[in-house]
Formats: sequence, structure tokens, C-alpha cells
Amino acid sequence: MARKNAFYAQSGGVTAVINASACGVIEIARAHKDQIGKVYAGRNGIIGALTEDLIDTSKESSAAIALLRSTPAGAFGSCRFKLKSLEANKREYERLIAVFKAHNIGYFFYNGGGDSADTCYKVSQLSQSMGYPLQAIHIPKTVDNDLPITDCCPGFGSVAKYVAVSTLEASFDVRSMAKTSTKVFVLEVMGRHAGWIAAAGGLVEDHGIPVVVLFPEIVFDEKKFLARVETLVKSHGYCTVVVSEGCHYADGSFLAEQGTRDAFGHAQLGGAAPVIANLVKQALGYKFHWAVADYLQRSARHIASKTDVKQAYDLGKKAVLLALQGHNAVMPTIDRVSDAPYKYKIGMAPLSKVANVEKFMPRNFITEDGFGITAPCKRYLLPLIQGEDYPKYKDGLPVYATLKNLPVAKKLPPFELQ
Amino acid sequence: MARKNAFYAQSGGVTAVINASACGVIEIARAHKDQIGKVYAGRNGIIGALTEDLIDTSKESSAAIALLRSTPAGAFGSCRFKLKSLEANKREYERLIAVFKAHNIGYFFYNGGGDSADTCYKVSQLSQSMGYPLQAIHIPKTVDNDLPITDCCPGFGSVAKYVAVSTLEASFDVRSMAKTSTKVFVLEVMGRHAGWIAAAGGLVEDHGIPVVVLFPEIVFDEKKFLARVETLVKSHGYCTVVVSEGCHYADGSFLAEQGTRDAFGHAQLGGAAPVIANLVKQALGYKFHWAVADYLQRSARHIASKTDVKQAYDLGKKAVLLALQGHNAVMPTIDRVSDAPYKYKIGMAPLSKVANVEKFMPRNFITEDGFGITAPCKRYLLPLIQGEDYPKYKDGLPVYATLKNLPVAKKLPPFELQ
Repeated sequence: MARKNAFYAQSGGVTAVINASACGVIEIARAHKDQIGKVYAGRNGIIGALTEDLIDTSKESSAAIALLRSTPAGAFGSCRFKLKSLEANKREYERLIAVFKAHNIGYFFYNGGGDSADTCYKVSQLSQSMGYPLQAIHIPKTVDNDLPITDCCPGFGSVAKYVAVSTLEASFDVRSMAKTSTKVFVLEVMGRHAGWIAAAGGLVEDHGIPVVVLFPEIVFDEKKFLARVETLVKSHGYCTVVVSEGCHYADGSFLAEQGTRDAFGHAQLGGAAPVIANLVKQALGYKFHWAVADYLQRSARHIASKTDVKQAYDLGKKAVLLALQGHNAVMPTIDRVSDAPYKYKIGMAPLSKVANVEKFMPRNFITEDGFGITAPCKRYLLPLIQGEDYPKYKDGLPVYATLKNLPVAKKLPPFELQ
Repeated sequence: MARKNAFYAQSGGVTAVINASACGVIEIARAHKDQIGKVYAGRNGIIGALTEDLIDTSKESSAAIALLRSTPAGAFGSCRFKLKSLEANKREYERLIAVFKAHNIGYFFYNGGGDSADTCYKVSQLSQSMGYPLQAIHIPKTVDNDLPITDCCPGFGSVAKYVAVSTLEASFDVRSMAKTSTKVFVLEVMGRHAGWIAAAGGLVEDHGIPVVVLFPEIVFDEKKFLARVETLVKSHGYCTVVVSEGCHYADGSFLAEQGTRDAFGHAQLGGAAPVIANLVKQALGYKFHWAVADYLQRSARHIASKTDVKQAYDLGKKAVLLALQGHNAVMPTIDRVSDAPYKYKIGMAPLSKVANVEKFMPRNFITEDGFGITAPCKRYLLPLIQGEDYPKYKDGLPVYATLKNLPVAKKLPPFELQ
């Protein structure tokens, strides 16, 4: 059988470790040159496939690929672009097949979250519905940690570590200032629908910090919230609030919505922290400070979780091995065996069960009052932030890879995105 | 001569390394037990002295004191409280002397910024004006880096490193997303009057990042700014904006003022980033993300500059040595000898020349268009962010000191703060 090339692309919001998965894919593919030809990366995700804008990763040195393991964000560019169904937009699928045929691509590795799993699943169906032999494997990636079946998602452990460390440090700060100045510090973190990232802020409770966590899973109750803040400030002199960007009122409206929507139709959020801070100021009179971590939290490779980096790399590697074993329409998963000591195996899930399913925080991970995390939640979270995996530094800054990203020569006429 | 005790206190906004100075003070005082008795720390800065709320640091173990070197924020509590002049509030000075006499305090170490240097200077005058023998030494500390005479201020190097690293990482993120999503990322950093912290964001330019820096020293020109952003997005596909909280219009009004003021009468700022982001969106239509680092930047001990930690410790140590040499009303300083290799000596400045003087960015550190930093500025900044000084970790989080902070028995009647 002639060797087929592989296509790899990054999709959706990037993370501190998605490039570690890319590193795993490319390194293990290179180790199987007898079975896999070149790895072509899509420039800006699936758009690179549609527009035949492919990057020839074989032009990158082993050192450059190895450096991906400690480089944040998407080295090949990501995208927010969702394929419609085969019925709704057959033109795009025909184009994908044309590009794959032109470049002898038999393996499709798509590295993304829930929306991307859906795209990958649709592509995986091409081999049947359009008679083109292709194996599509999804590599999980999302800071939101909201994919089903897998115990956790690469990217999450690092953002959780960032949020826990930052919450601890800022809490020490406000504790220092509380006597005459700031009494409430509010940190806004990501998590549109699922509160996994906010939950990580709750870990500082075991370090003596009075913390209130506001989850998207719990309807925001202003009166109860203010009472909780007042109680903590009275007992400790200060408190820290970690608020998810997805925190919302009973009518579903977000605490802060900027009114713009992304390509998937999701509201673009930001600004819950100042809303919370001002509520506290008006009702209780406490001086506040607030921070919005935004991209800093998901790109913070400098404080990545070693566990997360390893899992991201290993899932990229596993995706290639699954393809070589003949699988299609699957996603490698983390299957937890035990919490302490932390043990896990790498398993596999069918994409049909992954696409378009969101995993929320179980109710028993959130305290009864809705403002904190429970012991089971801590047991779940703690293994995921274990270990540090520092990048190398030069002249005071981390050494991160910027690849050459040389294009593969085009063979087809241009294609207009609609 | 009977051994005198020492008073040490932390003042104003805390930093990632102010406890390293405390560590230096206490360790070197302990090494000179023949000359210095106990080190009493003020609980919440000078307020601890006024209210006779003293902490007996001799009750802390050597290990706990050593751990201060890698612990952010103020271990004894800080305060925003400015002594009035001797004429305006003689009552407070008389109280200070009463407390110092009651506890046999002959050394006053005050660890803070510009306002605190003023407080320390006033206290230093007590020995003359009120006939009480006291040596007051100021230990510089401010993330704003705006003290005169000293080449840099402990706390600044670490916040500069945090801002440079975070700007680099978030820029990699927006670069990944720019094709179909976010094109402009805005990071708001501290710096009420001086742009030193914002300047650190400019260091990423040498890593290929298109960055616009907005300084408090340069009046915000909306039209020129938008033109610059448009040029960079057209050439690079994206750009990053680092905006100082002190960025303001020609009439002096800040881009975002929350309307509240701190104890020193300074406006409490925050929210320049969303203002900038919305300007860009309205004028150019680019999708944006924004972050406000706030306390995260100044408490980020996990990514502290090794140079900064060492200087903070050494200046604390030097303050004690200066006192033992008989000095009063002085501040140890960093005197730069050369940029590359970076060499410096520890010098000394009279507090009369430090108090109430702010050091701004020199105009030749800012590019002619006002949106970036020059080569001399980079030569100045780079040595200050050199080296990493990681804390120890346990269970995924840094191990930071929380001291016992046991009180010294009171000997005086209560004192009401006014």
C-alpha cells in the first residue's frame, strides 16, 4: 500500500499546550516514515485545507518540532470556522476531498474542542458518504474542559494551574492591603458554559484563603452572594472572588455581555469582574480591585502543568497510533484510574458520542451554597495541576518556537470561502 | 551602649519581592544580635507603630523567615496611610516616640515607595526635632519604578518580567487566532504616572511581535493610535496593545477612571483596556480581546526576576548595615555600572532628595511616535528581568509563607487613629 500523507490542524481557541499535541503528532509520524508520508499542517485550521493552504512540516528541524512542546498557542494558526452539514454545504466537502486527493492525504488529525470534534466527525463520514478513504482522528483540546467521555482535556490542567496560582498570589496581595485599602479582589476567568476553570480558583481555600467562586452552572443570586462576601470580609478582613465569564442571572443574561458574537454564534464575553466589583462596592462599600485574565490564562505556558503537557503530547502521539491501527472517527481519551496516587490510561471514544456534547461540573463538585468546591472536586482537580514544566529562557524571556511554516505547492484552482 | 530593637514595616502597594527585603532585614539583624535586639514588625505598616500593634519576628523560625524570600505580598500587612507634617499632626509623632521608647526601638526600617519615603523622612527628623534618638532608613520598593536616584526599584524587575512574558504569550495567542477571529489584544498594566511597567511590554518587539505601547508620559492621540493599529494589523494580521492604567487624554482625564480615590488621594484606576478595545472595534471593526492584569502582575512571585529578588534582599540587608554604621534619613540604592554585562553597586541616597520626587520615563526611552520603546530603553530594561527564581511547589501550588505574626505585649494605652 502506498504511503499516505497526514493532515493536521488546530481549531478553536488555542491553549498553552496544543502545540505539545502537535509535537506528539509530528514526532510520532516521523518515527513511522514507513507508514506515513509527510505531515501537512493546515494554515489556520480547516481553512488551510479548504483553501489548499498547507504547511509542509517536513521542512522544520527536529529541534524546532521539539520546541513546540514548550510553546504556547497554535504554531500553524487556528480558526473559528464550523463546517455545515454535508446536506447544507456539499461544496466544502467536495473541496476537502479534492485537496486530500491532490496531496495524497489519508489521515486527518483535528486538534480542538467540542465544535471541532463535530467538524472532525463530519470529515470522518466522508470516507463512507463520498467514497474517499480517510481516517479522521480528533485530538482533544480545550481549556474549558467540557468534552465528554475523556476525564480531562489538554489545556485545562495548565489554565487551572494558572488560575489557582494567580488566585493564591493575588489573595496574598489583598490580604496585605485589607486593613486600610482593598478588601475584595475579583478575578474573572474563562468558561462560557462550564465552571471548570473557575473551580480551580477554589483550590486556594485549602491555603487559608476566603474565596467565593461564581460558576456558570449556578444562577447568580446577588443577595446571597453579597451576604457571603460580607461574612468573609467580617471574619477574615478580606476576600477573593473568582467569577466565570459565563456567570449569569436567572433569565440567562450574562453579568457582562459585550454584544458581539463569534463565528460559532457564541456571545463574546468579558467584563463580569467589574460588574461584580461594583456590586460589592455599592452594597457593602468595600474597596475593590479586579482583574480579567482573558488570553493570559490560556497562553501561560510559563506556568503550565507538567501533567497537562505530558497528556497533550501523549494524546497527539496516540492519535497517530490509532490511525495506524486503522481507526476512524475516534478520539483518544484520558481514562482516570485513581486520584491519589494519580493514575490514568489512554483510551478511545467514538466521535459520534463526543461531537456537540458539553460536560458541565457535576452538582456534587459544587458546595451546597453554590459558592465553592467540594472535596470530590478537589480530588478531581489536584492531579491535573501537578508538576511544573518550565520553558527555557534567554535574556529574561521564554524561548518559544516560531516555525518557518513553508507552504506546500498548490495543485488546484483557488476556492472561495463562503 | 544597650542594644536597641528595630522596627520594620511595609507600606503602600505590595510587590512580589517586598518580603525578600523583609527577609534581608531580619536575617542580617539576627546575624548582628550583639548590636540589634529584636526586630518588631508593624502590623499593617506605620499603623502598627501608631496603635502599638507590633509583631515579634523573633518568634518566627529561621525556615519561615527564609521562606519570605520567595513569598509575594506583605507578610506583616501593608497600609495606605500618610503621616501629616509635624506641624499638622504632632499627636501622631508623639505617639510614635512613645511606642518606640516603650519598646526600646532605635532603628526604623520603612519599606515602600515615594509616599512611604516621605513618611520615613518625617520619622527620621524626630531624632532632631523631638530629641529622640532614632535612625530611620528607607528600603525602596515599588512596582512603579518611579523613585529617584536609585537606578531601579525592587518589585519593578519582577512585574516587568511578568508583563513581558505575558505580552509575549498572549501575542502568540492572538497571532494564532487572527485569521478568522481576534486581531487586536489589549493588556492593561499598572503605572499611574510613569510608564515603566508598560515599557516592559515593548520588549516583545524583538521577538517579532507588532506591539503598541501607551504610556502615561505621552498624551493619548486617538487618531494617531488607530492609524498605528491599522498599519500593524494590515502588515502582520494582528497586533498587541499594552496600555498603562495612567494613559490619559490631553485634558488630563484618564481613559478610564472609576471615580474612587485611595488614602493618598490618588484616583483608583482600572478599565483603560476595554476603552481602548472598544475604540478599535468601533473605528476599525477588528475583533478584540482584552485583559486587565491588576494585582496579578505585582503578586506574580511564580515568575519573579532573579535579579529583582536578589536586589530586594540585598537592599534589605544593606539597610541594616547602614543603620549599624550610624546612618539616618537615607535609602540604599542600586547604582548601575554597566548594561551588558550588567553590573551594579549598592549606594546610598539622602531621603531629603528621595521623598516626593517621581522619576518618569526619559523621552529618549520612548520612540518618536510615542508608541514604542527605544534601544536605550531596552538596554535599561533587559538586565532587570534576567533570571528565574522559582518558588518551591507542593501539590501543584507554590509554597508561600504565612507567618505566625504573634503580637508583642502592649505597654501603652490605646491610640485612636484619626
